[in-house]
Amino acid sequence: MRLSELSALSGVPIATIKYYLREGLLPPRRQISASQAEYTEAHLRRIRLVRALIQVGGMSVARTREVLGAAEDESLDQHQRFGTVLGALAGDQGTGEPELPPGSTARATVDELLDEVGWECCEDPQYWVLVRAVAALERLGYPCDLAHLRPYAAAVTPLARTDLRTIGEFPPGEAQLEAVVALTVLNEPVLLALRRIAHSHVSGQEFGARPAQ
Amino acid sequence: MRLSELSALSGVPIATIKYYLREGLLPPRRQISASQAEYTEAHLRRIRLVRALIQVGGMSVARTREVLGAAEDESLDQHQRFGTVLGALAGDQGTGEPELPPGSTARATVDELLDEVGWECCEDPQYWVLVRAVAALERLGYPCDLAHLRPYAAAVTPLARTDLRTIGEFPPGEAQLEAVVALTVLNEPVLLALRRIAHSHVSGQEFGARPAQ
Repeated sequence: MRLSELSALSGVPIATIKYYLREGLLPPRRQISASQAEYTEAHLRRIRLVRALIQVGGMSVARTREVLGAAEDESLDQHQRFGTVLGALAGDQGTGEPELPPGSTARATVDELLDEVGWECCEDPQYWVLVRAVAALERLGYPCDLAHLRPYAAAVTPLARTDLRTIGEFPPGEAQLEAVVALTVLNEPVLLALRRIAHSHVSGQEFGARPAQ
Repeated sequence: MRLSELSALSGVPIATIKYYLREGLLPPRRQISASQAEYTEAHLRRIRLVRALIQVGGMSVARTREVLGAAEDESLDQHQRFGTVLGALAGDQGTGEPELPPGSTARATVDELLDEVGWECCEDPQYWVLVRAVAALERLGYPCDLAHLRPYAAAVTPLARTDLRTIGEFPPGEAQLEAVVALTVLNEPVLLALRRIAHSHVSGQEFGARPAQ
């Protein structure tokens, strides 16, 4: 197909596709004669994935290349590819080990929680994101012990199953990687907005009936 | 108490307290003689609340004033004050009605979901945040119908109850408003990190056993 058709089918403007081409994010065109070359279905799938990584996932071109490398690495299974995508998504969150104040129990609490639910994630960049988030609660004197964190872990387990089931409905390969990015990132504001709406609703039930003070 | 004690007890640097004073976010000092004035427990509570609004909630000084106005307005009950805080927190999310493409079912889906769970939130700024998030999924061709959103609504309900129970353990008034901000905002990264860790874990269970492709 021609560039204009590729743009129409993918919904990505021609200028953006040219940028992806210049950055080497798309495979070479298929030569159909000595003077002619065309784009294929593989370009369409790749453009959708690149758009998901850059526009939805907010990844840099360098990180996008890293994910595309994993997508093409035939020695990896799909779970390992998902891991690369999820790791690249975490890239900008300052994922190294945070400096915790002396006496902080944030890390011990997180370890105990993960142990309790049986999740192994010692290499997951989100591990440190979680430790950092718990340490922030601790530092400001808010409850962040196991009793308060447990309902959060319980809440996300069925969500992960739902999301992965949805991801499994996409064709394996690049379309599935694209779904991992899109559903991981785009469902986050859905989750946060619903939580805040639930807060308002429950607050109305529990605090609204009181007379004005 | 003196400014230095106020700083030590609140953990907020003197320069920051002086900034809050200049911006009119703290009440006047109590005169103890013609030439002397001191800070009180009320200043300490207020500084903690202002810090939560500005540093944790990321609010502007103008929005912080709005919340402090609600905190002082005796005609409001605590639920109405919570609503002001939650609304001010949503302030920067572009909370107006989004322009949806023709044929979009995002709003109808959200309305049906909220109706199903029985949450009234027509005036909640998060309503439009949610519609916008669902519309983004829809635009990119990802499933965002009732069947996919329902587990998200189910997941946040127990979280809202847990959070509001924790908030209820704080003394009513400014300490509770501070807890609303802190627990709303600081638990968000906890929730998102746990969800991504759960994704990795479930992905390992469901996709990791497959042979490399």
